[in-house]
Parts: sequence; C-alpha cells; structure tokens
Amino acid sequence: MCVREHKDDGPGIQHPASLAKFTRKDWKSMARFFGTPPGVHVGQQFVDRLELRGAGVHLPLQAGISGTKAEGADSIVVSGGYGDDRDFGDYILYTGVGGKKAGSPQQISDQTVDAPGNAGLLTSMIQGLPVRVTRGAYKSSPFAPPAGYRYAGLFLVTEFNPRVGADGFHIVQFRLDRVPEQEPYEAGASTEADPAFASTVVARRIRDSAVARAVKSTYDFACQACGTTIEGFGGRRYAEGAHVKPLGRPHLGADVLNNLLCLCPNHHTQLDNGGLFIRPDMTLEDRLGAEVGGLTFKKNHVLLPDNARYHWDFWKSAS
Amino acid sequence: MCVREHKDDGPGIQHPASLAKFTRKDWKSMARFFGTPPGVHVGQQFVDRLELRGAGVHLPLQAGISGTKAEGADSIVVSGGYGDDRDFGDYILYTGVGGKKAGSPQQISDQTVDAPGNAGLLTSMIQGLPVRVTRGAYKSSPFAPPAGYRYAGLFLVTEFNPRVGADGFHIVQFRLDRVPEQEPYEAGASTEADPAFASTVVARRIRDSAVARAVKSTYDFACQACGTTIEGFGGRRYAEGAHVKPLGRPHLGADVLNNLLCLCPNHHTQLDNGGLFIRPDMTLEDRLGAEVGGLTFKKNHVLLPDNARYHWDFWKSAS
Repeated sequence: MCVREHKDDGPGIQHPASLAKFTRKDWKSMARFFGTPPGVHVGQQFVDRLELRGAGVHLPLQAGISGTKAEGADSIVVSGGYGDDRDFGDYILYTGVGGKKAGSPQQISDQTVDAPGNAGLLTSMIQGLPVRVTRGAYKSSPFAPPAGYRYAGLFLVTEFNPRVGADGFHIVQFRLDRVPEQEPYEAGASTEADPAFASTVVARRIRDSAVARAVKSTYDFACQACGTTIEGFGGRRYAEGAHVKPLGRPHLGADVLNNLLCLCPNHHTQLDNGGLFIRPDMTLEDRLGAEVGGLTFKKNHVLLPDNARYHWDFWKSAS
Repeated sequence: MCVREHKDDGPGIQHPASLAKFTRKDWKSMARFFGTPPGVHVGQQFVDRLELRGAGVHLPLQAGISGTKAEGADSIVVSGGYGDDRDFGDYILYTGVGGKKAGSPQQISDQTVDAPGNAGLLTSMIQGLPVRVTRGAYKSSPFAPPAGYRYAGLFLVTEFNPRVGADGFHIVQFRLDRVPEQEPYEAGASTEADPAFASTVVARRIRDSAVARAVKSTYDFACQACGTTIEGFGGRRYAEGAHVKPLGRPHLGADVLNNLLCLCPNHHTQLDNGGLFIRPDMTLEDRLGAEVGGLTFKKNHVLLPDNARYHWDFWKSAS
C-alpha cells in the first residue's frame, strides 16, 4: 500500500497518493495521515461519509473525531451533534465526544479528556498538528453545506476548555482556528517537499507585548526556572514572556507583570502544555508531582499567587 | 517625563502617553518604545520628520532606522533610499544602512551588520520585536504616499540576508512582514494591559510538515542535541522539526529528512538565530567556537553535510 517514491523520505512517511480510494482495511494498517490529501481541495463536496473516507479526508464512518492520544487527531466532522458546538467560520468551538444519548444532541453524562477522540485533539493542540475539518449539513451553522459534506481545510487546535456544558454535564470543548494560508486548489498537487505548503502550518505563537519585553529585560533574558539564556548571533539573547493565566478566552488572564514570567522556550512550552506547575511557594513540580526546582525572582517582580493557582486548577481539573 | 500610572508596571515600562509631543532631549533620556504610540493610527499622514518625531513614531530626524544592537530597532522609514529596496505592501525588502554616497541611492562601499541600525534590526528579528514602518513619498513604490510620510503599522523582521547588491557591494537586507492583526484605530486607546493587543505580535512561527512530524516521531520527541523531551499534559511530548538550511527565500532549503533535525525549542531557537553551529563531524559548537556536545542520529536518518555547511557559511559570512 505504502509505496516509497523519494529517496530521502525515510521511515514513517505516509504517501498521500496512496490514500486515494481508501478502504477500511487499508487505513487500519497504516500510520495516520495529516494534511490535505492530494486531489482534495478546500470547498470540495462529498455525498456521504463513505465518499469522505474514499478520498482520505475522514476515515471513520461514525466517529466525529479521527484520532488517538498517541498519534493525535488528523480529522473531525462538524455536524452540530452537540448543543454546545459553535461555528464562526474561521474558527469553531467543537465539543469532544462522549456523554451523549444516542441519536440526540443532549448530554446525559460527563465527557472525559481520556476518550480517544478528545485525547487525540489535545495531542494535536500540544504538538501543533493540522486537523482536517469537514462540515456536514445541519441547520444551526451558516457555514454548513445544504446537503452532504464539505471539506473546510486545515485547522489548528488553539484552545482546550473543559467546563460544564448547557446540559449540566462536564464537556471537553476545543477551539479550532483555520490555518490562514492553505495550499493552492490544484488537484493532485504534490505537497510533500514544498516549503510553501510546509510554511502553512503554524504550531506555536508567542505573544509579545510591552510588558513581556519588560519582564525579559528585568531578567536579562535568563529563564526564571533554570537560569538558561539562549544566545544567538553576536551574543543577542532570546527568552519568552510567559503568561501564567493565559490571555484570550476562556481564561482572560491579564497582560501585566504579576501574570508574567521570563522563561526559556523549553520551560514556556512545558508550562503552557500542562507539564509544569507552580506551587504557592513558587517551587515547581512536574506533571507527576515531583519537585523540579523553583522560580527565582528579582526585586520589584512578583507573580500573583492567584494566577499560579488558576493555571494549577485549570490543568488539574482537566484530568 | 515617565509618569507611572499602574501599580504593577514595575521598572522598565515605557508609558505611551508620555510620548506625545516628543522632543529630541526627551527621547535621548528614555528607554526605547516598541509598538504603535497612542493617538497614532495605521494610515495616518505626517507632513515631515519633525512631525513623525513629535508623535513618537520615528525619533531620529535623519536615520532611516531607529535602533541599537542592545535594544533592537523600534522603527524604520522606507523611502526608496537604496536601489535594492523592494516594497510589496504587506512585506518589504529593506536594505540596511551604510556604504552609500550621500544624497544618492548608489552603494560605494560594503555595509556591515555591526552598524547600529542594522544590528538593531537583527536584534528585533531574533527577539521578535515589533518595528514601526513609515513610508516616505517616493515614486518606485505604489504603497508610498504622494507627499510627506504615512504610518504603515507594525512589522516583524522575518529574514536577514547579507548579500551582494546591485551595485556590487555587500548589503545587509532584511525582510519585514506586516503583523496581520493590528490594534483598532482608536485615538488614545490604552494598549498596555489589553490581551487583544498583546496577541497581535507573533514572534516565532514553527513550520511543521509531514516530514517534520516524521523526524520527531523517529526520535520519539527527544532532542538530537541534548536528549531533552518536553512533556505536557498526560505525558504528551513536544519537539520541533528544525530545518538546517532554512525554507523560504533566499535559502530555499528543502523540506526533506536530510535537512531536518528533531530539536527541543531551546536548541531550535539557538540554531535558527546563529548561536549554534554543526561541524562536518556532527559535533556542535557555540557562537564562540567552543564544542557543546554533538548530534545523535538514529539508523536511517542522516543530515546532509551540505545543509550543515550552508547554515555555517550563512552565519559566519554575516559576521
């Protein structure tokens, strides 16, 4: 099934060409494919889920999410199956799987982050994997097709929000944002070795503001967790301003000094992904609860304990 | 001059309000201000350089670049002063300072990366600092105003390209890309503690492709330089696919396995910023030439020595 065409592809590379006319037996035996399959373009219509599978867009015939915790999620179908779903065109608030009465949008029990589809979307968020989004026909979205299914392109999972939904049960909601630049609408165009296409997937966005620059300057670009400074050309230093209570919905953390740390990219990534926690005494622990050092502070800079607690509660309540 | 209004601003924060009606004496004594000053909006016209300074947009009256190596560059004026400049609206190829005959666009000697303006733009690139761009009236750009100066908003320095220009001398060219979302056009709006504004500045974009995902999977997300794996929620791992010969112009590196490494964010940042070099024997050295370990490789994966050499030559020739 998986024919190797290029010398330097190496192991683990999935060839998009091999996805054409896909059957269930085929995809069960292959590595997960991320990105838009060749021959498929944004806006393309499909009659039913079987046709979606055949084109390599969405392989399961029933599940709305195609993915696992280990591999990430490669594709979702949005069809208004959950009452808490919201479709804004360029971004979508998408409710995870589980807890639903069969054939009804009503929740009758809690969703968990460990359900394979939900766990897959969270992996896609942390690893910056592109997720194919297809809309099914349903009336509450102005972006849904009148009938059948329509491929909407690649999205990134940008937020993860475990909360109580409209029906009073825990839901695991994700925000997906459309990748702004997408590959041209050419059927069969090769995307494998095309840097222009590669550049369409943005995995990490660092917000930088006057306050973030001030905190970096206060610490002379040394990480408050490990003391590392990243030096570049001519001795230029690099660090990141890390918001402990995240900016943006649903957190609405503030862009102020007492919500910011100066961190190296490694510790910033770990903090943002729920792998590093700040205790009330400003020591640090990893996701398994082991102490892994502590934050150092300069005079005139404090982290508001409430912000550390928000971060702690957010990730602890997710598990 | 610098009135503190908010309790948690701490040291080093510049208050935009204090920039109104700016004089030379004032700005010589203050920390550099990054971002759009309040009261200034994208598209705003200015009669002359004195008015640009008064509004806090561009403080020097002569120099096209406002900046230093230590602080970064906060502002440039684009006025077609160099024959190698190109203006594409949303992005600009901007030639650095130096080597020019006074009053003429012609180069008569080499530019260096150490000239303060050029060094400042390079610092802004490495640290992701937003640069104010103002266009002066000149006929070769369709985006330039018919007369006077027009503020074009915030840009990020995304490329640095030391090369031989049209006149046969070394030039230091930068690419600046417009920050897509900018603050609303409200005069005097406070931007200091507004997460929406903070989110407009994107400092680092990680390109991720099928090949990048394959190299990360090959190493199970462990950094080839230090063995670190970044763990997030539920043990999810994070690493970055680092292109050694960069994608995009002017490098045109390929998105293939033999041009990719699996690195932790810290080592990736260092490699991309000219702070880490790969020797032909795959050991690593820092910017001062000291050996700092070596890359580990799995079976079936090699880095093409030509790609390592390209990276080496690019940064070494820049100094």
